[in-house]
Amino acid sequence: MDMDSIVSLCKRRGFLFQSSEIYGGLQGFWDYGPLGVELKRNVKEAWWRDMVSCHDDMNTLDGAPSPYAMEGLDCTIIMHPQVWKCSGHYDLFHDFMVDCKETKKRYRHDQLNGRWVEAKDKKIFVTAPAGDDELEVMTKRALKFYNLRNKNIDDLKWDGDSTCLTEIEDLSVVLGPDAKQLGTLTEPREFNLMFKTFVGALSGEEGAAYLRPETAQGIFVNFKNVLDSTRHRLPLGIAQIGKSFRNEITPRNFTFRSREFEQMEIEFFCHPDKSRDWYQFWRDRRLKWYHDLGISGDNLIMREHTPEEAAHYSTGTADIEYAFPFMAEGEYGELEGIAHRGNFDLRSHMEGKLDENSDTLEVQLGEDGKPKWKGSGKDLSYRDDLTNEKYIPHVIEPSAGADRAALAFLCEAYTEDEQPDDKGKMQTRTVMKLHPRLAPIKAAVFPLVKKDGMPEVAKDVYLKLKKDFKVFYDEKGAVGRRYRRQDEAGTPYCITVDGQTLDDQTVTIRDRDTLEQVRVKIDEVSSIVKERVEG
Amino acid sequence: MDMDSIVSLCKRRGFLFQSSEIYGGLQGFWDYGPLGVELKRNVKEAWWRDMVSCHDDMNTLDGAPSPYAMEGLDCTIIMHPQVWKCSGHYDLFHDFMVDCKETKKRYRHDQLNGRWVEAKDKKIFVTAPAGDDELEVMTKRALKFYNLRNKNIDDLKWDGDSTCLTEIEDLSVVLGPDAKQLGTLTEPREFNLMFKTFVGALSGEEGAAYLRPETAQGIFVNFKNVLDSTRHRLPLGIAQIGKSFRNEITPRNFTFRSREFEQMEIEFFCHPDKSRDWYQFWRDRRLKWYHDLGISGDNLIMREHTPEEAAHYSTGTADIEYAFPFMAEGEYGELEGIAHRGNFDLRSHMEGKLDENSDTLEVQLGEDGKPKWKGSGKDLSYRDDLTNEKYIPHVIEPSAGADRAALAFLCEAYTEDEQPDDKGKMQTRTVMKLHPRLAPIKAAVFPLVKKDGMPEVAKDVYLKLKKDFKVFYDEKGAVGRRYRRQDEAGTPYCITVDGQTLDDQTVTIRDRDTLEQVRVKIDEVSSIVKERVEG
Repeated sequence: MDMDSIVSLCKRRGFLFQSSEIYGGLQGFWDYGPLGVELKRNVKEAWWRDMVSCHDDMNTLDGAPSPYAMEGLDCTIIMHPQVWKCSGHYDLFHDFMVDCKETKKRYRHDQLNGRWVEAKDKKIFVTAPAGDDELEVMTKRALKFYNLRNKNIDDLKWDGDSTCLTEIEDLSVVLGPDAKQLGTLTEPREFNLMFKTFVGALSGEEGAAYLRPETAQGIFVNFKNVLDSTRHRLPLGIAQIGKSFRNEITPRNFTFRSREFEQMEIEFFCHPDKSRDWYQFWRDRRLKWYHDLGISGDNLIMREHTPEEAAHYSTGTADIEYAFPFMAEGEYGELEGIAHRGNFDLRSHMEGKLDENSDTLEVQLGEDGKPKWKGSGKDLSYRDDLTNEKYIPHVIEPSAGADRAALAFLCEAYTEDEQPDDKGKMQTRTVMKLHPRLAPIKAAVFPLVKKDGMPEVAKDVYLKLKKDFKVFYDEKGAVGRRYRRQDEAGTPYCITVDGQTLDDQTVTIRDRDTLEQVRVKIDEVSSIVKERVEG
Repeated sequence: MDMDSIVSLCKRRGFLFQSSEIYGGLQGFWDYGPLGVELKRNVKEAWWRDMVSCHDDMNTLDGAPSPYAMEGLDCTIIMHPQVWKCSGHYDLFHDFMVDCKETKKRYRHDQLNGRWVEAKDKKIFVTAPAGDDELEVMTKRALKFYNLRNKNIDDLKWDGDSTCLTEIEDLSVVLGPDAKQLGTLTEPREFNLMFKTFVGALSGEEGAAYLRPETAQGIFVNFKNVLDSTRHRLPLGIAQIGKSFRNEITPRNFTFRSREFEQMEIEFFCHPDKSRDWYQFWRDRRLKWYHDLGISGDNLIMREHTPEEAAHYSTGTADIEYAFPFMAEGEYGELEGIAHRGNFDLRSHMEGKLDENSDTLEVQLGEDGKPKWKGSGKDLSYRDDLTNEKYIPHVIEPSAGADRAALAFLCEAYTEDEQPDDKGKMQTRTVMKLHPRLAPIKAAVFPLVKKDGMPEVAKDVYLKLKKDFKVFYDEKGAVGRRYRRQDEAGTPYCITVDGQTLDDQTVTIRDRDTLEQVRVKIDEVSSIVKERVEG
């Protein structure tokens, strides 16, 4: 399975288009076409039903430590800027960038590698973008800089291995990746990944606001509102689906790393003593969700973060990762992170900015000696009316990407097999084996031929099914070709009206994956398809 | 019915919260709470099912001139900036603002009124924000300016009626609405309503981009992609639900005029000769949609735009308007606009910017003599494979606001009536008479008392219903109080397990609106509620 085939099918069949394609596109932005929007809606709907609206508050299911409540929320993308100051994003959510004064190009500081080299009595540090071919590129660049020919390659005296530019202090001897002269790279500067905009008629920093880089903070600042309006006891999960934005320097890998993306996040509030159990529960439950929707065990792993990777306040973080086809063999890409966040966020919004190093709460002082980022001052703690205990809840956060989930389902579904065509000749068939719940079109209805009253009967069947879900009617061309088109779209069931239908009021239902055809009464088609689709 | 009661219920029961409330809120931004998010999801889902996924492509329903296809799309909020140049938003989507040099306040030029007045041999134009009390305010301000007492009010010599500031050329004699001195208002300046941001690591205008002010343009620029990937013939409607952003100077009226809002838009592409018929069809069909979901005829009107209001390229525009409680008697607020847009948008994206005055297509030239905003140069016309005719389709655009629809449904649902409480005493009952399809919680299940095995049976019923939709279980307090809480949430059906249940396996279903209780077999509850909810 190669990524190019998947990308090409996505464009051709209308799953995904490049944003603003007629204007040359916009890097890191993708539009969902007619099939794609249905797939993504189904992914989000499955998540919402399974996690929120059909969640059973009263019973202990899936190995939950106790019954728990779930509620939804839908917050704005633009929030009060203070939210991002207290969450830490304003100060800490950035990459370090260096500019090249000669070429005006900009690079991520930690994505440039380099190596010391000496020739003609001059020692320099020659750089290249980190990657498989970096040593090759460095050699070429060094030859060019010293004005040496290939045959004089041995004149280059290398010193040490390839090293990240972040290790180098003296930039005056560094040759930038595209520069002709030495010392053209600037000192690294912070580049915040939040998109900035301006709200209201005010000009300048007074009106500055940010597009949210995550939906989570909207849940934290509404925690009290949700508690007060629903009167739930903890444990309580609050869920949100919505767009987030990150101004990634290097968006890549199709929709995997986009600048505009959609998240499906839960913040699960519980008693500190129970938080380890709930962390374990959510790890298991979320992994099972992907399995249940058709991602095979081989392609999905749960990876516990190393202590170095985890945020200092977190007592546990694990990623659910998928073996995307664009990853190297044995490598995986993140689908979802499940983090034990302690009480970091609620405390931060109560009291002010947390000191990242000490894990104690400190209001940072600005140059004028006044607090720099103050919290809301609102009490976000919880009082248990049964035990009368008051505490700041601990939070488990299962944070999934809707676009990444959709992409993983697409990659997992993409299959090529050999099947006989209408004339019995073996042909390569492309089929999207999407779970019926996720399939954009649930069923297609065909009259075998365009005469003998078959179209009329087929249209009746179509109309009946159409009341419940997206159904496709097709009477054009050979039936084999019609099947193939639906296979590519991932339609799980094709219903065919044939000669026998007119005699005995039966039709065939063909299964996309097994190719098995069963004959059923017309009256039963609707309930059979519905049952299979809704599970 | 007053708006304050509705706003207060929305906050108390978790329909709507002010965004970032713990930080003092953010004007023009609103969050949906646990009940609100389900209501809004249901509004959007009803629209999507009725218009897109369950639309019947094959038959002529609802008086359509011919069968037609519908497809969905989901585009990014940030698009290529050229899109907004060719759509006209970059040049024309603005308000005119004046600044006060004295107070640093800013006003919309067309929302300041004023009147000529003379006293002490000095004639000035005294201004106030347009409104019912503007004359009163102007009088007070004039007295203050001339240092006159109330008893000397007759010293003020008024000249003419109240006039909009836009009529005044000489600003040196104008007294600003909050200023002490004359002539402090600046000349009007354009203030674009699009939120601006910057994409990528580029600094300055090179990276400038905008948050979309409408979802429509994403459909136009993807028209060819949708056509190619679906192979539909026209007529074809393409639908999209998504957030849009407008930096309104004066957001107001709860969620009615917000800066971040969600649209439900259809661009319907058809043959120019059929476009008038389709315009009529979509006016009728969209009006009916609101009626079917419970908005009564009295509160809903269809208003055809006057020739002055309509865009020059439009041969017809009508608004569906609702009698929101915050409007004056006899006034209505826009829920949805249905516009006949001709081929304006497709031509603009093909060829460049349209001249707003002449309705001919002209690439505007910049100062350097080169085209200012060029279109994509892509051919967005359509060739009919049956007639071989090639044309640029005409477009009918039914453009609805999801937040305004949700607000109208909330206002329409809000009802106060008199009902007996548990002791037979008449009490005011607040009930949200939402259509069952839109109700956030579809059913509530109560054991009459918390003993005799009733909770166990009730939990079983709850669990069975929960598989299909959001259901609430409540065993706390008097059953009358539990009914009232569900009435406020708009829950259409309350199911009660009582003494008789244990004898004959029946429960009661109470109808929220009629208060009628029917007794049904436990086994049938699920299918009865499902049928009523899904219609």
